[in-house]
Amino acid sequence: MMDRRNFIRKSAIAGTTALLLPEIVKAALPESRNDRHYLAKGETILFQGDSITDRGRSRKEEDLPNDQRQLGSGYPLFAAANILANNPEKELKIYNRGISGNKVFQLADRWEKDCIALKPDVVSILIGVNDFWHTKTGGYTGTVTTYAVDYNKLIADTLKALPNVKIVILEPFIIQGGSALDSTWESDFAPYRDAAKKVAEDYDLSFVPLQLVFNEALKKASAAYWGPDGVHPSFAGAQLMAQAWSKCIQ
Amino acid sequence: MMDRRNFIRKSAIAGTTALLLPEIVKAALPESRNDRHYLAKGETILFQGDSITDRGRSRKEEDLPNDQRQLGSGYPLFAAANILANNPEKELKIYNRGISGNKVFQLADRWEKDCIALKPDVVSILIGVNDFWHTKTGGYTGTVTTYAVDYNKLIADTLKALPNVKIVILEPFIIQGGSALDSTWESDFAPYRDAAKKVAEDYDLSFVPLQLVFNEALKKASAAYWGPDGVHPSFAGAQLMAQAWSKCIQ
Repeated sequence: MMDRRNFIRKSAIAGTTALLLPEIVKAALPESRNDRHYLAKGETILFQGDSITDRGRSRKEEDLPNDQRQLGSGYPLFAAANILANNPEKELKIYNRGISGNKVFQLADRWEKDCIALKPDVVSILIGVNDFWHTKTGGYTGTVTTYAVDYNKLIADTLKALPNVKIVILEPFIIQGGSALDSTWESDFAPYRDAAKKVAEDYDLSFVPLQLVFNEALKKASAAYWGPDGVHPSFAGAQLMAQAWSKCIQ
Repeated sequence: MMDRRNFIRKSAIAGTTALLLPEIVKAALPESRNDRHYLAKGETILFQGDSITDRGRSRKEEDLPNDQRQLGSGYPLFAAANILANNPEKELKIYNRGISGNKVFQLADRWEKDCIALKPDVVSILIGVNDFWHTKTGGYTGTVTTYAVDYNKLIADTLKALPNVKIVILEPFIIQGGSALDSTWESDFAPYRDAAKKVAEDYDLSFVPLQLVFNEALKKASAAYWGPDGVHPSFAGAQLMAQAWSKCIQ
């Protein structure tokens, strides 16, 4: 018993403020960010994107808000779990409509059905890795300019249809050291990240700098821990994304 | 744009300390609890229990620590996500070996293989609802005394085999208003909760009072939100459990 008792005594000394405060996210995101959105009663939150967002979500339940199968097993699930546990009185509705393989023009193709029709109050978008990746592996001929122009138009159209919507742009990112990346990714993918950031700035949107978050995370553990292929986060990486996202939406 | 800008200005006023602090858990658990365990490098954490713990975990990957499929989709997943995101440098190993339908004697039957052999540093146990439920629906003839005696022996055997293990007892709970409960549950299940608490007290173990947590949660939203059948938490309920658990293990 003595070991446990000693242990308990030691533990009691530490404060309680560190509880659940995500160290990596705190290091990556300055506390002064002024783009926080506090959820109001009855709001609808939509996650949009590619496979990182999709993560095996069930299409059968896609019209059931807050359904675990509908949300998949990636960062939307972890973000939703946190939001729903912390805001039970708000009667929120959370949807995931990410689709694996999507590039920004494919979001545009299905935007009326998979965004506007849901009348979201918050739209969270993570798109861009396939706009680059598929030029290397899929014969896709779009450039970073295509990405920037398409993304710009998507946001303009969204704000036209839903003038009061809060849009959160998640920075496309890579996890250095991942097995799917070669040496060209670091330099060649950077312009896509810059383009996503510029869209957020131009339209005064919230922006979650996920590349910073993962760069910070990589100081503590390798890509094998955060996302073995460098593109798709592990669930520890997904939780990190959810924590970063929660700095914008609470 | 004006709406969004106004919104952003208002949001910036609120402090950052509320970030991710779980309101319900704070209300249910006093800050002075002295049973916190800070995880050390290389520690192994084991979740044990019944269907609430199992939640569809894959048996195929059960020897792969930190594997999302192995962890299932319940509170062990959400607790593990938080632990792994917040402790990347610690090289922790997290396992889930919950099995649906288990009563405490069934944990004992497989304890050598599914607990002792894993040499855990932390064992988290949630067991008891079936010890009661199956007397009503499954023809099981064990009583609350059977439960208390078996649970006592399980803990004694565990501490004999693993003298330095930290054991966390999760209080068995019901979510009032759930569809699987009838009016007898409130009074007849209470002795099982008391028995679990007494085991924790007798052996100086950490205890997570989940009934308090769910009672607090029910002030904000109904069983439909936290666990429709009153026994199995929704993922919002699972996240709440993980938050409560995280007050003992960080």
